[in-house]
Amino acid sequence: MVSALRLPSLHLTNLFSSSPCISRRSSAILRRHHRLRPPPTLTAGFSAQSAASSPPETDDKVVEIEKNRASQDRGNRERVITPRSQDFNAWYLDVISNAELADYGPVRGTMVIRPYGYAIWEAIQDYLNVKFKETGHSNMYFPQFIPYSFIEKEASHVEGFSPELALVTIGGGKELEEKLVVRPTSETIVNHMFTQWIHSYRDLPLLVNQWANVTRWEMRTKPFVRTLEFLWQEGHTAHATPEEAEKEAMQMIDIYTKFAYEHTAIPVIAGRKSKVETFAGASRTYTIEAMMGDKRALQAGTSHNLGQNFSLAFGTQFTDENGQRQHVWQTSWAISTRFVGGIIMTHGDDTGLMLPPRIAPIQVVIVPIWKKADEKTGVLSAALSAKEVLQKSGIRVKLDDSDQRTPGWKFNFWEMKGIPLRIEIGPRDVSSGSVVISRRDVPGKQGKVFGISMEPSILEAYVKDKLDEIQSALLERATSFRDSNIVDVSSYEELKEAISMGKWARGPWSASDADELKVKEETGATIRCFPFEQPQGNKTCFMTGNPAQEVALFAKSY
Amino acid sequence: MVSALRLPSLHLTNLFSSSPCISRRSSAILRRHHRLRPPPTLTAGFSAQSAASSPPETDDKVVEIEKNRASQDRGNRERVITPRSQDFNAWYLDVISNAELADYGPVRGTMVIRPYGYAIWEAIQDYLNVKFKETGHSNMYFPQFIPYSFIEKEASHVEGFSPELALVTIGGGKELEEKLVVRPTSETIVNHMFTQWIHSYRDLPLLVNQWANVTRWEMRTKPFVRTLEFLWQEGHTAHATPEEAEKEAMQMIDIYTKFAYEHTAIPVIAGRKSKVETFAGASRTYTIEAMMGDKRALQAGTSHNLGQNFSLAFGTQFTDENGQRQHVWQTSWAISTRFVGGIIMTHGDDTGLMLPPRIAPIQVVIVPIWKKADEKTGVLSAALSAKEVLQKSGIRVKLDDSDQRTPGWKFNFWEMKGIPLRIEIGPRDVSSGSVVISRRDVPGKQGKVFGISMEPSILEAYVKDKLDEIQSALLERATSFRDSNIVDVSSYEELKEAISMGKWARGPWSASDADELKVKEETGATIRCFPFEQPQGNKTCFMTGNPAQEVALFAKSY
Repeated sequence: MVSALRLPSLHLTNLFSSSPCISRRSSAILRRHHRLRPPPTLTAGFSAQSAASSPPETDDKVVEIEKNRASQDRGNRERVITPRSQDFNAWYLDVISNAELADYGPVRGTMVIRPYGYAIWEAIQDYLNVKFKETGHSNMYFPQFIPYSFIEKEASHVEGFSPELALVTIGGGKELEEKLVVRPTSETIVNHMFTQWIHSYRDLPLLVNQWANVTRWEMRTKPFVRTLEFLWQEGHTAHATPEEAEKEAMQMIDIYTKFAYEHTAIPVIAGRKSKVETFAGASRTYTIEAMMGDKRALQAGTSHNLGQNFSLAFGTQFTDENGQRQHVWQTSWAISTRFVGGIIMTHGDDTGLMLPPRIAPIQVVIVPIWKKADEKTGVLSAALSAKEVLQKSGIRVKLDDSDQRTPGWKFNFWEMKGIPLRIEIGPRDVSSGSVVISRRDVPGKQGKVFGISMEPSILEAYVKDKLDEIQSALLERATSFRDSNIVDVSSYEELKEAISMGKWARGPWSASDADELKVKEETGATIRCFPFEQPQGNKTCFMTGNPAQEVALFAKSY
Repeated sequence: MVSALRLPSLHLTNLFSSSPCISRRSSAILRRHHRLRPPPTLTAGFSAQSAASSPPETDDKVVEIEKNRASQDRGNRERVITPRSQDFNAWYLDVISNAELADYGPVRGTMVIRPYGYAIWEAIQDYLNVKFKETGHSNMYFPQFIPYSFIEKEASHVEGFSPELALVTIGGGKELEEKLVVRPTSETIVNHMFTQWIHSYRDLPLLVNQWANVTRWEMRTKPFVRTLEFLWQEGHTAHATPEEAEKEAMQMIDIYTKFAYEHTAIPVIAGRKSKVETFAGASRTYTIEAMMGDKRALQAGTSHNLGQNFSLAFGTQFTDENGQRQHVWQTSWAISTRFVGGIIMTHGDDTGLMLPPRIAPIQVVIVPIWKKADEKTGVLSAALSAKEVLQKSGIRVKLDDSDQRTPGWKFNFWEMKGIPLRIEIGPRDVSSGSVVISRRDVPGKQGKVFGISMEPSILEAYVKDKLDEIQSALLERATSFRDSNIVDVSSYEELKEAISMGKWARGPWSASDADELKVKEETGATIRCFPFEQPQGNKTCFMTGNPAQEVALFAKSY
């Protein structure tokens, strides 16, 4: 559910969309951004190793050599990440490729979500699913094929969506009488069904949600952020009064906001969209806007008060307590796989991905370290029992006990994958009954603590505590980054300056839609939202000099 | 993933597919099967009421009357189910409609899965998802649009699927250069991606799964059993050796079999498909076959050993330990929303749905009963604390405390919805500190037990015990139904007789594909499988008189 304007951003990369329609070479396109020199942190990672870095233990020399060669190859092929400061977009694509989050599909603009990327999506689903159910929503499933005539029923909806529809025209070998739309969103088919289920006020509120794929024929695409097909949840509700619908729309944007802050450590700014940016078919759109590492805004979730726009178009009515027929008041709200892109671009650094512990598929990786064969058993057994201790207490932990890679390689690999905590266990650690623990978010020696006791209750408490600390630290860091890049402006000149410096501009606004479009044309920035949190006091519109009710937040966006 | 033949069954109802392409009246079509007389159990339900049936408690007489009228209306409109014996198909559609499991979508052959039906699907997902991960599989997501040329690469695959493809020919307002297939299954796109991810033997086995929607342009459809679009999981794996692939295919059919028996109380027969019925593109297809209440067979899940069919077509290769390039060995396996239809048609009776406790979204419903206002508080508070006790111990429980319906209405409603256990609490029960518990699977007084103590530990233990008992009883009942309807045959005449009586026939078979097709033409029955469990001793093919290795199971199927 994107904004009503639906103009392709001018600033999206062409790389993803320029992949040929069908090509085995699609992943080569990702790779052409890889540099052959190791990124700074690759070295840092190796030097940060306190426990002995040692060659893998094997019996067979030939296999050994083969393995090392392969490891070398793979290292060179996979481990090079463009520095963020050099080219943020190339960095983003490198992280996605190297961390194996996603890959290009064979059809232009489509994306394969790989297991590690999908696990992040599953973590998002797990959290939201519980919240949706707690607030009385049921999951269900609507068909993805929508008769073309449905889309035409709501005037602004068809205007917003018709340019980017995928149409099925042939089914079972025959030309279809009516073209079918592959759903870009489901308000129309939902209303068609609601007319059959809603009879009286007793059938309200009707609160449903679906997890589904949707298709929008976007011209400029970017993995996770904007793809031809993406995954999302779309909530759809019907209410007896406008107040209830408004309350629901607000409740859902609140759930998204809490999720962003508490689970993904993304300090989104929640607010209302301008009329120009409101969803095609909504009366009011609420949004959460996140600042990415390149300071562009990402619309990370939206909640729409649809008013009676769809119920009037589809005749979705109920009999009220006085026996009168009334049109229902509706909402819809969505978060999509785009959110995964938001997590990558908020927290990632030159080493790669950095995942907030609460959303990380793996929170702790254990790397055992041994030099001699006789050390191996003791080290592995200690590593295994540490794993069991943590697993039992509900921590998502992985023991990387493969002997195809050196510990140093593993350190770097799992740092690149964004695992919040690493536990290192070497022979000396086994003797002293302790482990070494390194934080992903604090590089080098500063993030490393020696001699944490392996005693289960101590280890468990320490790890849990550290994970909480990292979660807070990531939110704090992102918040101060955000706040240091928002400029309060009181004139259009100041806005232009702020935007040209790549920052966000916040200022009082009561100007026209035309003025808003002018800002967009001249600066590339749009109103991201009127934040719910507003400064006190009288305000004067920085564009017109007229009184203003609210400040608006302007930024360039994805 | 259906059989290679993919002939539409001659015996499917026309009702679902005859719904007009786009029509608000689609649900009226479901309803026209409803009879106006109450089903026998509706009366039985009322008379079985031991605790006092009493009018709802309200303050407002007018609202009261309105509510009763509405309740009456709804009762008449929704609660009539065609007896199974009279018309099994009409019964099936009535149950789906009345229990609000699904509804027709606006496009012919599509289905809306309503919250209660979707909750059953979620229970299926929850169980299988854990099993898949335990056995090393990761979830991921492949795009649903597949270039048409991909489908053509594997000869038998294109033959099996091309007649029923939905094709996207227009995207973003423009005619596409290459038509896109809306996935009917993903082997082709999976292989396209596997070629990019698999390099050496160290990348194997590659074990992934996706939960997704798929589209097959079926001409004769039936809710859950066969719809244009359906939901499923599809597992896809690649292995270094044929033995590993075979082991994987067997492992997954075993997981499906255990799931069917232990969770859904469906005594499926697991076995191997005949060559004729093997999946389009597979070397071997394993299946679980379930006997529905009308004795038709339902293919409830399949697991395919794909051999090297797709890896040869797509060039999916790896470098083995000796440095040689080899094609991978693959499997795929799926269970779909069709399984929900299998649960309905295995356990349902003339009262409606009957759900096995382990798969039931609601396992226990609590119905409070009061006559006078001063009884209400005590009854409701006892009901609430019973609910909390059960909820705390992990039982899925619903308290139906609405005062818009009589207890009798509620009894019938929840019986129709298939809730395994009902707890009734009236004023006398409150005084005696006990409750009345009724089983869904044992109608009338026989299934009702009085005076179960409300003491938490006793109540919890009793309910858990009863739920286990019901789970076993349903499996036992279905198993004896199945076994009493399978006839061992030793001649084609015997087979014809068994099939004409609506039964399944089991007999030694080593005849030709042509003979198999002849049986189908002459009797309507197909080989459902060669069961894994085979009788001992020498066998003689009942068709040819030649020696036979195995017995085959023949039946008419959905």
